[in-house]
Amino acid sequence: MSEYRGYNGKVLEFLKQNKLKVGDTIKITTDSEQTATIMPRYEHSDDTHLVVKFKSGYNVGFGLDKIKKIEYLSGVESSQESGKPISYDPALPKILLLSTGGTIASRIDYRTGSVTPALNAQELNASVPELAEIANIDAEVLFSEYSENITPEHWIKIAQKLDSLAKSEYAGILVAHGTDTMQYTAAFLSFALAGFPKPIVLVGSQRSSDRPSSDAALNLIGATKFIIKCKTSGVFVAMHNSENDDDTACHLGTRVRKNHTSKRNAFETVGAKPAFIISGENVVQNFSGKYYTQKDYTPKIKIDPKVALVKYHPGYDPKQVEYLLELGYKAIIFEGTGLGHVGKSMYDIIKKAKEQNVFLGMTSQCLDGQVNMAIYESGRDLMHFGIIPLSNMIPEIALVKAMWVLGNDANIKEVMLKNIASEFTE
Amino acid sequence: MSEYRGYNGKVLEFLKQNKLKVGDTIKITTDSEQTATIMPRYEHSDDTHLVVKFKSGYNVGFGLDKIKKIEYLSGVESSQESGKPISYDPALPKILLLSTGGTIASRIDYRTGSVTPALNAQELNASVPELAEIANIDAEVLFSEYSENITPEHWIKIAQKLDSLAKSEYAGILVAHGTDTMQYTAAFLSFALAGFPKPIVLVGSQRSSDRPSSDAALNLIGATKFIIKCKTSGVFVAMHNSENDDDTACHLGTRVRKNHTSKRNAFETVGAKPAFIISGENVVQNFSGKYYTQKDYTPKIKIDPKVALVKYHPGYDPKQVEYLLELGYKAIIFEGTGLGHVGKSMYDIIKKAKEQNVFLGMTSQCLDGQVNMAIYESGRDLMHFGIIPLSNMIPEIALVKAMWVLGNDANIKEVMLKNIASEFTE
Repeated sequence: MSEYRGYNGKVLEFLKQNKLKVGDTIKITTDSEQTATIMPRYEHSDDTHLVVKFKSGYNVGFGLDKIKKIEYLSGVESSQESGKPISYDPALPKILLLSTGGTIASRIDYRTGSVTPALNAQELNASVPELAEIANIDAEVLFSEYSENITPEHWIKIAQKLDSLAKSEYAGILVAHGTDTMQYTAAFLSFALAGFPKPIVLVGSQRSSDRPSSDAALNLIGATKFIIKCKTSGVFVAMHNSENDDDTACHLGTRVRKNHTSKRNAFETVGAKPAFIISGENVVQNFSGKYYTQKDYTPKIKIDPKVALVKYHPGYDPKQVEYLLELGYKAIIFEGTGLGHVGKSMYDIIKKAKEQNVFLGMTSQCLDGQVNMAIYESGRDLMHFGIIPLSNMIPEIALVKAMWVLGNDANIKEVMLKNIASEFTE
Repeated sequence: MSEYRGYNGKVLEFLKQNKLKVGDTIKITTDSEQTATIMPRYEHSDDTHLVVKFKSGYNVGFGLDKIKKIEYLSGVESSQESGKPISYDPALPKILLLSTGGTIASRIDYRTGSVTPALNAQELNASVPELAEIANIDAEVLFSEYSENITPEHWIKIAQKLDSLAKSEYAGILVAHGTDTMQYTAAFLSFALAGFPKPIVLVGSQRSSDRPSSDAALNLIGATKFIIKCKTSGVFVAMHNSENDDDTACHLGTRVRKNHTSKRNAFETVGAKPAFIISGENVVQNFSGKYYTQKDYTPKIKIDPKVALVKYHPGYDPKQVEYLLELGYKAIIFEGTGLGHVGKSMYDIIKKAKEQNVFLGMTSQCLDGQVNMAIYESGRDLMHFGIIPLSNMIPEIALVKAMWVLGNDANIKEVMLKNIASEFTE
């Protein structure tokens, strides 16, 4: 990354004249005097503004004509501190914190201004000293990826690692994970490890742990309390329950969705309250429906990603599905409209897909509610062609389930309709 | 449709012995005696249950062994009643109800058990006599399609018809429309007719008007009151505000989404309250942000549907985008993860798309919140490749907007980032 990334023209000259570069800590005087860090700029920058980050985490751009004085204080911060050694209390339960990356295990790189995966799980543990008071936490870095780069191969790695811990002495396992695709990973683990004898809790943060508004600490503490007190097993996602720093919500791994880009309480259980709320020392069970899981733990950790998610909309070209057939896709999950429909323009390609023995499942782009294809002509027609309505399964979860079923089972239709891990709720 | 559609084995025999067929009204005695209609059955039927619909609208399946007596009352109901002539009150405002189809203009076909578009707008008007007390409503059927079958060509027809009414004596225009793709049509009309001098209100119903739980009447009355009292113009969607039969919510046509498959209050304004609430005789403005619209009405009623919506997920195969390039797509709207990301596996195909001058816009599959691609490395990389972050535009609305821009304007990037009809909010 360049020392002047994104700066050009007058501002670039200004930086060079003052011997400053991106990442430097400065004292800047405009109407007032403040300490800040010089940030890089991105595309379409004008050449008259300098962008700095205050300690509050906010970035501000100053016009050069507003800057009365600028002073170098120090260079780029050292990017890591080492973790403290962890003390053991034999009276407390043991928990493993398995880190896979994401914001919860990251910090802002002051050189580039971007957030990068940096902290290892041990440092993270050390950065939240409250944890040592309630549990003995071992930390292990499995890999370090932002969750937009997590692939089905990563899911397999996580599942295999967790499987190896099924009979361990840990009371449960925390999986530090980026929030972008956390719901997809949670779904895969829910299916692959159905019946796992301990709680597995995916935990993330929407804001990195060096920002004052970070949710990392509360989420980690809440998830840890949940493992100690919940007396259940299964795969959950633990994140903020509101925009305040109070309660943690624990969502079923097959019913959770990230429904906001940035709010700390971005994660929601679709169509219901979160399964559990951790409020202070209390773990309150909120889950009213029946919780389906498997009695016997028989892991099925394979996958076949030849599944497509097709979101229908007016103007959708059925040729896109034609190509999926050419590519050898074995299952298509439709995100239909309303109760589970697609337009008549799709009928021919759907018939063709069925002839080629492709599994066709229907979910709804409404996300909440239940597919019901018996009410309207369109739905009836589609069932006639062999599309299987998938009740209230969330589209993304149905996608992951189909990948998992194709990797492990012979009869996709039967298993897609069977409730494996509460992916269907009443 | 067969007289015995879906029945086989023992139940089929039972029907034939009793000289009954689908659609017949019967008196059925089990534990109690009730009047009902024989419904058809769908796939995977067993051969031991008869399905009937009670007048309440509920369907029930009875095991043959539970049926003590069954009696023929009458054959298939006549499918239509003619509308009453409409009386005119010169003191009341004039409104046009333009029907395009959908549940609001449909009824259950007792022969097949499915809901089909049947009522014309005049009959609909006549079926809600309260309307004649508040407005003189003219009715016109433009076409009759379920909204899953609405295409961009239909959008053009609706827009051209509305354009021809810009200088008419109507106070506003109600557009009866199926709910499945109502948000897509509302978005197109918002862009194509930006600055239209009258209110245009799309209205639908989640349950057909011959069902006791129908929301058709309240939605029509609410939408009509809105037109009379709102003193604004623009394109809105009027639907139930709650599960009760009380208030109607009026959503901006570019900020609305169907977020539940079946609830009467399925439509929501994403990330904010509905723009207006019609409560009794009051029209309450709820819209706090600035309402962007065009001062001058200069309709732009063309479209180019060569736009794809690409929802990224772990395991997404970039070859799917490769094929879009082969098909000559001119714009791709990504539904990225979180703040607007896709995995590194997509980088090569994105660079290739950019080289071919395809417009690449980023929205978020979180739906709520705002894309921000400057925070993480992935976002920064993607902006570097030329992907344009589309702030808080809803993915489906961005798709429709791109189709509209391609049909009408030379500079897609400039217009995609310009607020035409409140598709961006603060």
